[in-house]
Amino acid sequence: MNIGGKHYTTIWLDGSDPETVKIIDQRALPFRLVIEDLRTVEEACAAIRDMHLRGAPLIGVAGAFGMYLALLRSPRGREAAALEEAAAALVATRPTAVNLAFAVSRVRAALGSRAARGEMIAAALAEARRIRRDEIDFCRRIGEYGVTLIEKTAVRKPREPVNILTHCNAGWLACVDYGTATAPIYRAHDRGIPVHVWVDETRPRNQGARLTAYELGEHGVPHTVIVDNAGGHLMQHGRVDMVIVGSDRTTAAGDVCNKIGTYLKALAAKDNGVPFFAALPSSTIDFSIRDGVKEIEVEERSQDEVRYIEGFHGEAIVSTRVTPERSPAANPGFDVTPARLVTGIITERGVAEASEAGLRKLFPEAKGYKD
Amino acid sequence: MNIGGKHYTTIWLDGSDPETVKIIDQRALPFRLVIEDLRTVEEACAAIRDMHLRGAPLIGVAGAFGMYLALLRSPRGREAAALEEAAAALVATRPTAVNLAFAVSRVRAALGSRAARGEMIAAALAEARRIRRDEIDFCRRIGEYGVTLIEKTAVRKPREPVNILTHCNAGWLACVDYGTATAPIYRAHDRGIPVHVWVDETRPRNQGARLTAYELGEHGVPHTVIVDNAGGHLMQHGRVDMVIVGSDRTTAAGDVCNKIGTYLKALAAKDNGVPFFAALPSSTIDFSIRDGVKEIEVEERSQDEVRYIEGFHGEAIVSTRVTPERSPAANPGFDVTPARLVTGIITERGVAEASEAGLRKLFPEAKGYKD
Repeated sequence: MNIGGKHYTTIWLDGSDPETVKIIDQRALPFRLVIEDLRTVEEACAAIRDMHLRGAPLIGVAGAFGMYLALLRSPRGREAAALEEAAAALVATRPTAVNLAFAVSRVRAALGSRAARGEMIAAALAEARRIRRDEIDFCRRIGEYGVTLIEKTAVRKPREPVNILTHCNAGWLACVDYGTATAPIYRAHDRGIPVHVWVDETRPRNQGARLTAYELGEHGVPHTVIVDNAGGHLMQHGRVDMVIVGSDRTTAAGDVCNKIGTYLKALAAKDNGVPFFAALPSSTIDFSIRDGVKEIEVEERSQDEVRYIEGFHGEAIVSTRVTPERSPAANPGFDVTPARLVTGIITERGVAEASEAGLRKLFPEAKGYKD
Repeated sequence: MNIGGKHYTTIWLDGSDPETVKIIDQRALPFRLVIEDLRTVEEACAAIRDMHLRGAPLIGVAGAFGMYLALLRSPRGREAAALEEAAAALVATRPTAVNLAFAVSRVRAALGSRAARGEMIAAALAEARRIRRDEIDFCRRIGEYGVTLIEKTAVRKPREPVNILTHCNAGWLACVDYGTATAPIYRAHDRGIPVHVWVDETRPRNQGARLTAYELGEHGVPHTVIVDNAGGHLMQHGRVDMVIVGSDRTTAAGDVCNKIGTYLKALAAKDNGVPFFAALPSSTIDFSIRDGVKEIEVEERSQDEVRYIEGFHGEAIVSTRVTPERSPAANPGFDVTPARLVTGIITERGVAEASEAGLRKLFPEAKGYKD
């Protein structure tokens, strides 16, 4: 999507230097736009681990390019060992991300039994590019299917914007382009359907306030930032027409594991008759689990993410402490929204009912169902 | 309660100088303990309006002392006019606060037909002191009734702390002493019942992270700060035994208007079978309204409270911007939790069912019921 009127994606190869992977270092957003060069798998690992880039689809693509970089810089004759080490190192950077492991293994599979260095490098690059293109295509299709839901609401309230609430950043900055939760929104906006987005700040890392607000603003989509506490009140007063969120991991039964706080918005949506959708590429569906609350172990992150907040002051990004010095904090990264609270799951193949039957219908070939 | 081992209240008269009202300027907490002198009604108005002090009960007491200061500094012979002006100015500082209007009118009523300056001043001071003592007493009694609820849970899980989640600051810093939501917690802790408090950060003004965490920590109560997004997840995993919050305004039917985000916690509590209590002095009950969502107009506060966050950096309190420069924000200050989500209302007369019948039973003499 656009930044300052120019089209960007989150990760790309520079035409003039195919040995360098370019990414947007999202840590500086929305205060500064920083483009970073990744030249080694170590740099790719650091970028994933230290969250220069984040979001399930984007992490997968970065992992695939990481495999390519590992091969490219490997000592001659040590390609296989380098790949092995790179795969382990990449997967270890974010153990919860299923797309990352999936993308890494896709690159290994694409190499097949090739042993010639040049062929291996070419095959890894081609597969990483294919994964990148697939992710863009998935998001584009999620947008196509999702926009019909927005259109239905728009018809019921002509001359007024459709108010959509979103949580965290499931935008193009979490993907390569379009985003997941935002894809239907961008599609609607670009088609001239009036939309307005309530952007949940999304503590503790403020991805909503920092990234979603930034990308919507740069693309020209009307939006308003709210604290995570406000959504329920807005729904009680009819000011939210639908909720669209992303998903880091979705179970075979349609439970949605997403950024901490998503569950609270789903409860409020249910209580007020507001439709609640999760938009996701099917790569985030884990068909081997059903009960998300019981089966998904939620990552407990550093308490300093709660105790300190990053903001812009003067001309610098500074981190300030917002709690008493001696008070401890807890920081679960995700929560699980049970399928009973989810109106529908928007995928690259269409909108599924949030149930095992609904997902099976769209993905009959999926492996891993526990029967 | 205690700060650094010494007993404090939020507002008091210094024995050596009865013409100066002392308050804790809460804007500097938890980073610095600042004691402020109020010598005029203008200073009292500024302290209320600019939130040097906040919390329904405390604002009421400050309003009462403001009336006393107005009389004390009034030009001789202009006492009545000064009182009139002071009452209007004080009530205008926080139009949503019913206690403030109530306390101000209590002082006026206490003056009766007195016309002698000395008598008027003495009567205003006595009434302000009585209101302060009443608030302390209400909180003490809320603690007495509320602790029985904690005790019941403690019996069911010996050797483990009772985990209580609270939102915003309904602590002693919002009152004069004990607090409302915290009164049962302090009482339990002081009696040796093991408690642990999940402290909701409470964006946008972070009263939980800054004030509740501070006062619990200074009094020695085990606690953990969490972002407002985390409570639902903790409840899903059995890590919250009960929720206790305060209330800025309660309807005759038991709807609870409290800090924005309270409603979301009540929904999660209901969904997980966790008891949800509101603790409040009956002065915050507005018997003239029933349906809180429909009848209470929620204050829309400055968007900069969302866009900027205050924290501690170096040795200074600095305000940093956390949103893109051009993104607007919305900031509703409160939300309404319908009575159907409230397990009980802890008052100075006992624990009421959250219903018109329940409240009528405890407060049969209350005026204002719409019949």
